[in-house]
Amino acid sequence: MSAPRDDGYDDLASDAAYFPALHEQIVQALAAVDGHAFRRDAWQKAPDEPLSGDGVTCVLEGGRVFERAGVMLSRVQGRALPPSATARRPEHAGRPFFATGVSVVVHPQNPYVPTSHLNVRLLALQDGSARWFGGGFDLTPFYPFDDDVMHWHRVARGVCAPFGAAVYPTLKARCDEYFFLKHRAETRGVGGLFVDDLMPGALPGLDTVSACFALTRGIGDAFVDAYVPIVQRRRDTPFGARERAFQLVRRGRYVEFNLVFDRGTHFGLQSGGRSESILASMPPLASWCYDHRPEPGSAEARLRDYLRPRDWLVGDAA
Amino acid sequence: MSAPRDDGYDDLASDAAYFPALHEQIVQALAAVDGHAFRRDAWQKAPDEPLSGDGVTCVLEGGRVFERAGVMLSRVQGRALPPSATARRPEHAGRPFFATGVSVVVHPQNPYVPTSHLNVRLLALQDGSARWFGGGFDLTPFYPFDDDVMHWHRVARGVCAPFGAAVYPTLKARCDEYFFLKHRAETRGVGGLFVDDLMPGALPGLDTVSACFALTRGIGDAFVDAYVPIVQRRRDTPFGARERAFQLVRRGRYVEFNLVFDRGTHFGLQSGGRSESILASMPPLASWCYDHRPEPGSAEARLRDYLRPRDWLVGDAA
Repeated sequence: MSAPRDDGYDDLASDAAYFPALHEQIVQALAAVDGHAFRRDAWQKAPDEPLSGDGVTCVLEGGRVFERAGVMLSRVQGRALPPSATARRPEHAGRPFFATGVSVVVHPQNPYVPTSHLNVRLLALQDGSARWFGGGFDLTPFYPFDDDVMHWHRVARGVCAPFGAAVYPTLKARCDEYFFLKHRAETRGVGGLFVDDLMPGALPGLDTVSACFALTRGIGDAFVDAYVPIVQRRRDTPFGARERAFQLVRRGRYVEFNLVFDRGTHFGLQSGGRSESILASMPPLASWCYDHRPEPGSAEARLRDYLRPRDWLVGDAA
Repeated sequence: MSAPRDDGYDDLASDAAYFPALHEQIVQALAAVDGHAFRRDAWQKAPDEPLSGDGVTCVLEGGRVFERAGVMLSRVQGRALPPSATARRPEHAGRPFFATGVSVVVHPQNPYVPTSHLNVRLLALQDGSARWFGGGFDLTPFYPFDDDVMHWHRVARGVCAPFGAAVYPTLKARCDEYFFLKHRAETRGVGGLFVDDLMPGALPGLDTVSACFALTRGIGDAFVDAYVPIVQRRRDTPFGARERAFQLVRRGRYVEFNLVFDRGTHFGLQSGGRSESILASMPPLASWCYDHRPEPGSAEARLRDYLRPRDWLVGDAA
């Protein structure tokens, strides 16, 4: 074991150990909310596959609260870092790398409970000489409540606060930008936080690897606090066929985002990742209606106003 | 009107007129099978949009036989042909172009009736000085019957026969190759025909623009004969919740193909095409189950054998 170094380049294995711990914490928190246990699949890729590694995919299907919740942990090694992996350090391309991360997608039964997503990840050269991070969480309501959206964004702002006042608006804006369905001219939901290629100097106030990792951990650690109170508040709201039908149409948009735009999904499917784990993010059921247009003035039409970037915390003291 | 030219460069408008006629013919044939009429949406893109043009999207939803059938006609003009549009003629890139085509996707109610797809298209320089074609049809059964698959491929072979014995195997192989879900290691279905970038010399025996267009028309004209007999044979097969559930899972794979791999869908969504028309190909309802594995020996497990390239007409006299 090497002693911690001042520049923040602590032992890679110790950084990586954060992810299984977070994975376990989220699985337990969601199982407690639902009352059903997760199915747990440990998987391993053969060392001769393009991407070797292992992971644990935990899935809860047909729960009391969650129609599907997927909590995925993966750890992969690759022989050659793809050039796309770090736009900020093209000189690292082609070098052996290590990547680990946790992804969560929750599709609730009740249409009044929003869908949510978390991803946190660490990418590193295999010798540990460089590492960078990414992560975020975003919320996709069908019938949005301002209280829920504000709670979500207050938690997001709180995660960023220790790193300076500029971090939350930056990561919020990147989230709105990333989770955007160009062909629908709408965001996936009400956003949250998103950051990619996070390394010292990438954001003002984040000058060390330790700070970058601390922000990443902050995002991961805050997910349960950001999401579970919303689930508890809305899980028993009565609903009928109309709300269910709308939820399924909106889940169709979720599918469109994941399969057409999401870089993680594309990268995973194209690089020979484990399909079942990658696609555990898909909704259990989704629908498409030709030229679906909610009746003007209806609860369903109201959603549209939430699907464009907006400052949700305007006038809300930090 | 200019006189027909020996090299096959007939009047562009007269070639283009084939497509609305085919569109109408298919709409009428499918409506007759179902007993319900199609909704008909004529649309027009403003001339200042990146891709100007118009089209007619006909959709039948919630029919007796078809849960959704979409029959789409489009005609677009663009200021600059994208380099990807014709790999065989890079010198045409950047020139004003015209494109027209018909797309059909049919999602039947009954899981014993396969999903089917047709596309035929003409791409041309706007002055008519060059034109090239593409098209194909493919069949996606859930519970396959050899009789249906052989009928489908016999029609396909018949379409190609006038152009030489090598055409059917070539277009069949290209279809298997194109409609392949890499991450699932399976074809979309039992294939059919597929050809892109079809111009004189691209295939042996197709030496003129007229021959290329004749093959394209052959594909379009044969669709109803290839598909409707299968629909009629299977539409009244009794089914229950189990078959329906399997149909929805398989439709999830159809969504994966369309959104992850299909070049037409990607091109359409990214170039500012009309989203509702492009996505009229999506199934009305689809599902995803984590790590779905049909019971060994079940009717559902049998499908897997049909999802790899195979010579369906081996020993079948032409």
